[in-house]
Amino acid sequence: MRAAYMYGAGDVRVVDVPDPKIQLPTDAVVRVVRACVCGSDLHPYHSMPATPEGTPMGHEFVGVVEDAGSAVSTVARGDLVIAPFAWSDGSCEFCHAGLQTSCLHGGFWAAGGIGGAQAEAVRVPFADGTLVKAPVGEDSHLLPSLLTLSDVYGTGYHAALKGGVTAGSTVTVIGDGAVGLLAVLSARQLGAERIVLMGRHKARTDLGREFGATDVVAERGQEGIAKVRELTGGHGSPVVLEAVGHMPAYEQAVGVVRPGGVISRVGVPQYEQAPVGFTSLFGPNITLTGGPAPARAYIETLMPAVLDGTVEPGRVFDETVALDRTPEGYRAMDERRALKVLVRP
Amino acid sequence: MRAAYMYGAGDVRVVDVPDPKIQLPTDAVVRVVRACVCGSDLHPYHSMPATPEGTPMGHEFVGVVEDAGSAVSTVARGDLVIAPFAWSDGSCEFCHAGLQTSCLHGGFWAAGGIGGAQAEAVRVPFADGTLVKAPVGEDSHLLPSLLTLSDVYGTGYHAALKGGVTAGSTVTVIGDGAVGLLAVLSARQLGAERIVLMGRHKARTDLGREFGATDVVAERGQEGIAKVRELTGGHGSPVVLEAVGHMPAYEQAVGVVRPGGVISRVGVPQYEQAPVGFTSLFGPNITLTGGPAPARAYIETLMPAVLDGTVEPGRVFDETVALDRTPEGYRAMDERRALKVLVRP
Repeated sequence: MRAAYMYGAGDVRVVDVPDPKIQLPTDAVVRVVRACVCGSDLHPYHSMPATPEGTPMGHEFVGVVEDAGSAVSTVARGDLVIAPFAWSDGSCEFCHAGLQTSCLHGGFWAAGGIGGAQAEAVRVPFADGTLVKAPVGEDSHLLPSLLTLSDVYGTGYHAALKGGVTAGSTVTVIGDGAVGLLAVLSARQLGAERIVLMGRHKARTDLGREFGATDVVAERGQEGIAKVRELTGGHGSPVVLEAVGHMPAYEQAVGVVRPGGVISRVGVPQYEQAPVGFTSLFGPNITLTGGPAPARAYIETLMPAVLDGTVEPGRVFDETVALDRTPEGYRAMDERRALKVLVRP
Repeated sequence: MRAAYMYGAGDVRVVDVPDPKIQLPTDAVVRVVRACVCGSDLHPYHSMPATPEGTPMGHEFVGVVEDAGSAVSTVARGDLVIAPFAWSDGSCEFCHAGLQTSCLHGGFWAAGGIGGAQAEAVRVPFADGTLVKAPVGEDSHLLPSLLTLSDVYGTGYHAALKGGVTAGSTVTVIGDGAVGLLAVLSARQLGAERIVLMGRHKARTDLGREFGATDVVAERGQEGIAKVRELTGGHGSPVVLEAVGHMPAYEQAVGVVRPGGVISRVGVPQYEQAPVGFTSLFGPNITLTGGPAPARAYIETLMPAVLDGTVEPGRVFDETVALDRTPEGYRAMDERRALKVLVRP
C-alpha cells in the first residue's frame, strides 16, 4: 500500500510499504477513508534528524474495518470507525479512569511497529478499546467533523475541561490553529461567556468568532498580554487554554492568567524546563494542567452534537489533498496557507 | 522595642528599634504574645547577602491589640488576635475570592516598612482585613495551636485543599517539617484514607503518624520513589503534597505522582525553572498547583477544631526561646535539633 513517511525535517514522501495484517486476535485492520495533517506533525517537520528508513506519519483517521481479529467484538467488517490519536486496551485502570493516553498497554500511531494514519490502511491494536463506531457511511458529509474527534476536537475539549471551564467562565485561548479554534468551540459548549482568542491570522480568528470567541487579540508579547488584561478587568483571565506548545505561548499564558487561575496546556511542549517558581506560577497560586487528550474518552460525549449538526468542527479543514500529495499538505500548513489539511487516500 | 533582624546568612541579632505606632486609621498595633521561626526563614538564613541595616524577621504571631486606628471595627484594644502571614485589605476582589495572598493592596510582614513578628510588637495594616479575634486569653494553653493558624497549619491545609484531597484519597506528603506534618493532619481532616509521609527524621515522622500518616518512607531519591510507588499500587500517588521547596523535592513529587494526578506545592520554591514538559508533567497529564496559602481564608474554618481540642497542631513546636534568644532558635532549626521553635517576647 501507499503511506506517507518522513525522512527528516521538511522531507515527506509517499512510498510503498507492506499491507498491514492482523497480528493478534485483538487487532483490526482499518482502510483509511479520511486522515489529515496535524499541527503537531509540523514539530518533526521542522526538527526531525534525517534517517534512511524514515518514519510513518499521521495519527488521525476515520476508516472502514476491513478485517478484525477473533477477539474483537465491538466493531466488525464494514463498520465506519473513528480512531483516537492514542490506541488503548480499554480495560486497564487508566482506561477505566478515562485517561487512555496513559493506558498500561497502549501507545501512539506511527511508533513501535504500528503504522501511521497518512496511509491507505492501518493495523489497530486493541480494536475494542481503541475504535468507536460511527453510524454513518463512508460517503457522509460529516466525515471531516467526525475526523476531528480523532484529535483536535477532543484536544480542544480536554483543554477546556481541564481548565475547569463552566457556565459563565471567562477564558483566554492562545493559538488560532485547529486545536485553539476547537478549544474556543469547546469552551462555548461548556458555557463560557467571555472567550478571548489570541491569534493573528484573520481567516482563522474569524472562524474562531463563529465558534464562539467574543474577542480577538492579534497582538503578541507584552502588547498582547496588556490587551488581554485590559479585556479581562485588569487582573487577567481566570482560565487560559494554551494550544501552541512553544515557549513564547507558555510565557504568554503566564502573562495573561489571573492570580488563582488555571493554565491548561494541550499544545505539545517544545521545551522541558519552564518558569514555575515564585514570580511565575507559585506566587500568584496559578495551576498548570493539561496534557495529551484522552480523545477516546470524549468521542461518545462529543459525537451526538456532530451527528445532529449542532457543531461543525470539521470547518477547520480548509484544504484537501490526495494521499500521494500529502507532502504538499505539509507545505501548505507549514507556510500557513492552510489551517488544516484533509488527506484522502 | 526589641526585634530580631537578619544581617546576612546565618547572622540573626536581636536589636533595639523604634516602637511601632498607628500610621493610618486602618492600622492596629499588636503586642506579640507568641511568634515563631518558620522553615521558610531558613532559606534567607542560608543565602541572604550581608547588609549593614539588616531586615526584620518573622511572619507568624498571635498577640494582643494595644492600639487600633479610628477606622478599625472588628478588633479592639485587649483582644487576642491571630495574624496570617500576609496582611490584606479584606475588601478587594481577591480577598473576597479567598485569595488574600494576592490582595491588591496587601503585602507580607517584614517588608516594605512593615515590621517582622519576631519582635515585641507589630504595626498591622488593614487590621479589619488581616486579624482574626480568638476567644481565649493570653494565658491560654491553646496559644501554640492557634499560632499555627498564622501559617503552617493553613499552609498544610492549602496544600491538601488545592491537591483535591477528599474522602478516601490516597496522598503522599513530601517533607517532615511543620508544614508537611500539618499537611498530613489536614489531609486526614479532609478524609484521606492512605497518607504516605516521606521524611527521615524519626521523631517528626512519629508525630506525622499521630497526625494521620498511614505509612512513612524514609528513603530518598529513586529508592524513595520506588517505595512510594510500591505502596500505592505501582503507578504512584494520585495526590502529592510538596512541603519543602527545593528542587530534589520537586523531582521526588514528579517521581511519585500517578498519571492524571496532582502535585500541590506549598514549600516556597528555591528554583524558578523546573521540568514541566512531555516527560515530566505533560505526557502523564499531571496537574501542578499550590502557592502561598491564603492563611487568612482558613483561620475561621480551622479554628473550631483547635478550640475544642479535636486537633493539636501546636504539637509541631518542640522548643521555646525568649525573644532575645531568637538566634539560638534559628540555629536549632537549621541544625534540625528543633522541628519548630516558639518565640516568647
